[in-house]
Formats: sequence, structure tokens, C-alpha cells
Amino acid sequence: MFKYKLTIEYDGTNFVGWQRQDNGLSIQQSIEKAIQKLSNEQVTVFGAGRTDAGVHAKGQVAHFEISKEMTIDNIRDGINQYLRPMPIVILNASKVNNNFHARFLAKQRIYQYSIINRRQPLTFQRHLSWVIYKKLDINKIIEAALYFEGNHDFNAFRSVDCQSTSSIKTIDYCSVINDQESIIINVAAKSFLHSQVRIITGTLVNVGEGKIQPSEIKKIIEMKDRDKAGVTAPAHGLYLKKIIY
Amino acid sequence: MFKYKLTIEYDGTNFVGWQRQDNGLSIQQSIEKAIQKLSNEQVTVFGAGRTDAGVHAKGQVAHFEISKEMTIDNIRDGINQYLRPMPIVILNASKVNNNFHARFLAKQRIYQYSIINRRQPLTFQRHLSWVIYKKLDINKIIEAALYFEGNHDFNAFRSVDCQSTSSIKTIDYCSVINDQESIIINVAAKSFLHSQVRIITGTLVNVGEGKIQPSEIKKIIEMKDRDKAGVTAPAHGLYLKKIIY
Repeated sequence: MFKYKLTIEYDGTNFVGWQRQDNGLSIQQSIEKAIQKLSNEQVTVFGAGRTDAGVHAKGQVAHFEISKEMTIDNIRDGINQYLRPMPIVILNASKVNNNFHARFLAKQRIYQYSIINRRQPLTFQRHLSWVIYKKLDINKIIEAALYFEGNHDFNAFRSVDCQSTSSIKTIDYCSVINDQESIIINVAAKSFLHSQVRIITGTLVNVGEGKIQPSEIKKIIEMKDRDKAGVTAPAHGLYLKKIIY
Repeated sequence: MFKYKLTIEYDGTNFVGWQRQDNGLSIQQSIEKAIQKLSNEQVTVFGAGRTDAGVHAKGQVAHFEISKEMTIDNIRDGINQYLRPMPIVILNASKVNNNFHARFLAKQRIYQYSIINRRQPLTFQRHLSWVIYKKLDINKIIEAALYFEGNHDFNAFRSVDCQSTSSIKTIDYCSVINDQESIIINVAAKSFLHSQVRIITGTLVNVGEGKIQPSEIKKIIEMKDRDKAGVTAPAHGLYLKKIIY
């Protein structure tokens, strides 16, 4: 068998998420079908991270195996051909050894959350960013973000659907980039709890609105109570940006 | 009567263009309806420049008159409220004196064309940029763009539908900005011929592909023959960026 690694970009707006589900089309299933058309083999595609319905990716990583060897140009261009006209593309394909596993060998997952802070509704970015109409205090958001870094019990920052047995995670960094009306939050960790980045982002927006003070974040983490944290930011501003191995 | 100037942003993907038409919804008509709902007055909105079906705007300008005075905050937020959920927004509203005319007083119109030069199809930008799969020679494009600047007979660079009696126009600048896979072409003039920016862009892409040499642009302009110029770039990469008064 030959194993290939894919780096994938997708607009998740009209999909049920990365993972195959009964209630609609998933990214995973779409790529599996395209590979099947290309190779005439039934394959399973293993992704590095699940993304929920409406969540996008700029650098999802996945792997699959086929029995017939193909060049990486044929893999990339061939899958892209069969994915059309869906907004899913293989940015890059590479051949990997049989030990590679997109999910289990990932050392770091980087998520990006895109906020646009302006008084007017969005046009071009309407499914690609979260618009906040009220002017946010960016300095407070930058200050608050630092409290999320490090090893903490993030029980207050996971959805009720979260299946993880432990809520202890290490956030490598939580950084904020502000350029005019755009606010980008980058969060990196080996792994995340369900909705963790969206609840961190929602809480940071509440900080920017003045509803939560930056210094309160420490206490909110310590109380481990979901109700004490902020809102859950909508799916459509979130991007799986990069996977590091 | 009170006259207001609007600065407008829109995603033109699903519209028949700026101008009211029989075959579908226009931007102009959508804004007129929203103003009518807000003011209970029937109005005509005069735009600075027409945009064709699929063409976008980041800074279209228009004016209209109503008999009841309103604050500019109410004008902007009220129209935006009634425009929902369409991807058209009023970025800015201001009160202007009765002599103001969005179209006749415009001193310069700036159009922007967005190209993405990469091997993979687009995801997020699919209706917002023109993707060119073959690697373009950016230095040749930059060199060629300069030939369009100045006062020329642009008969080779207008569509067969163009109604202008004269094809002589002055291009104030035609500049090219390249950042990784993105190529942005900015073209400024007091006024343009029909499809002029799209044919200039298509010709520049043909230069980047090596089909036309930069030095040939001068001759192509001089021959005044549409068949000698390059392809017409698609509507969905074009933006009316700014109007200067």
C-alpha cells in the first residue's frame, strides 16, 4: 500500500463538518469520493482534526492509502478535478511512510478565529468572519488572551457535548492580531476540547465589550464552570489553520 | 429636499449589476427599495459608475434626495437594516449640498482587479477573484501595465456593446501589486469604456502567460482593433474600489 498526506483548504459553509454524518455532506466524504473516482479504490481519509459544520480550513491535514502508486502531482490535481465544483481543494500532496498518521502524530494544531469589528454588516466575508458591531477594546482583548496560555483545566471552555475524559489542556499560545477592523485570534495546542477555541473567542469578545475584565479570566478558568465563561463564537469565523508534525 | 451621499460595498455575485434591469435584481433597485421602506418616499439612487453583473464594489458612490431630513447615522443604519440579508451595505452616509451629483462630479474612478495565481482551484475567493492556474511572469505584467497609462485611443480595449461616441480616454495609473499568489491591478481614470478594465486585465494576463510581449502593448493600442488585444477577464474579479470628487 502507498500512503499519501494531503493538506486541504475548504470553505465549510455548506457542509456538515469534516466528519462523515447521516444528515448531510461532509468534507471527509467528499474527498473520499473524489479519491475513489481517481483511483478506483475505496478509501478512508483520516483527518488531523475534526471541524464542525460551518468551520473552515486553510491547512487541514489528512492521510489515506491506495494500492496503486501515483505521482503526487496526479494525486493533488486528480483529487481537485473530482472535487469540483465544491469549495474543497488539495493544496499539497506528499508521499509518506507507512508509520505516518495525520491524527495521532500531530504535535500541534493551530486554529484561527476571524472577527471583523465594524458597524456595518458584512458583504464579502459574511460566511467567513464574525462581525461585531460594537467597538471592541482591543488592548483588553490582547491582555486577556495571555491568561489562556499554559496548562489549565479548561472545563469552563468546552461545550456540553464534549466527550473528553480530561479537560486539562496546554495552550502553547493565544495571540491577537489587529489590523484596522480585522481581529485575528490564533490559538495553538497539541489538542483541544470541543468548542474550546470558539468559547475562548466568545469570552475575549465579551472582554472587548467590557462585560468581563481581563484579570477575571484567571478566576473564570479556576471556577471550571461553563456558565462563568463567555458566549460561544459562531462556527463561521473559525479556521483550522495549520497542523504541525 | 435633502440630498445624501452614500458609499456602498457589495458582493455583486447574485445581482444583474448596478443598474435596474428587467431580468433580475440590481444593486440600485435593492438600495432604492430599502430607502423607500426607511423614508416612505419613492426615490431614485444615482450611482457614480455602473457595474456589470457579477462585478463587486468596495466604494461605489451614489446620491438620492428625500423631503424629510434624517441624521446620517439613521440613513446608514436604517438602509443597512432594510438591505438585510443581501450582501449590500452602506459603509458611509453624508449630507451633501444640492449641487452634488455622484456621476457627473466624479473626478476619478478607481477599479481594482483581483487575480489569484495558483495551481489549485479557489475556495473562499471563488466568486471574488480570477484564478489563473499557469504561473504568470509578474515582471512582464508590471512592465506591460505602464503602456496603458496616459491618453490613448482605447478602441481595442472596449466591448462591442460599448456605447461611447469616443474611445479616447486618459488612464491616470495602471499599477500592479503582487503579494505571494495574489496579483492586484489598480486602474484609475476619470471615466472608462465598457469592459475596459476587464480587457486590460485579460491582456495583462496574456502578457504574464508569455502570449503577448510587454512591448507589443503599444502597437496593440495603436491598431485600435479589439481582436488584437487579449481576453476579457471575468466579471467576478473586478471591484469598483473608490470614487474621487
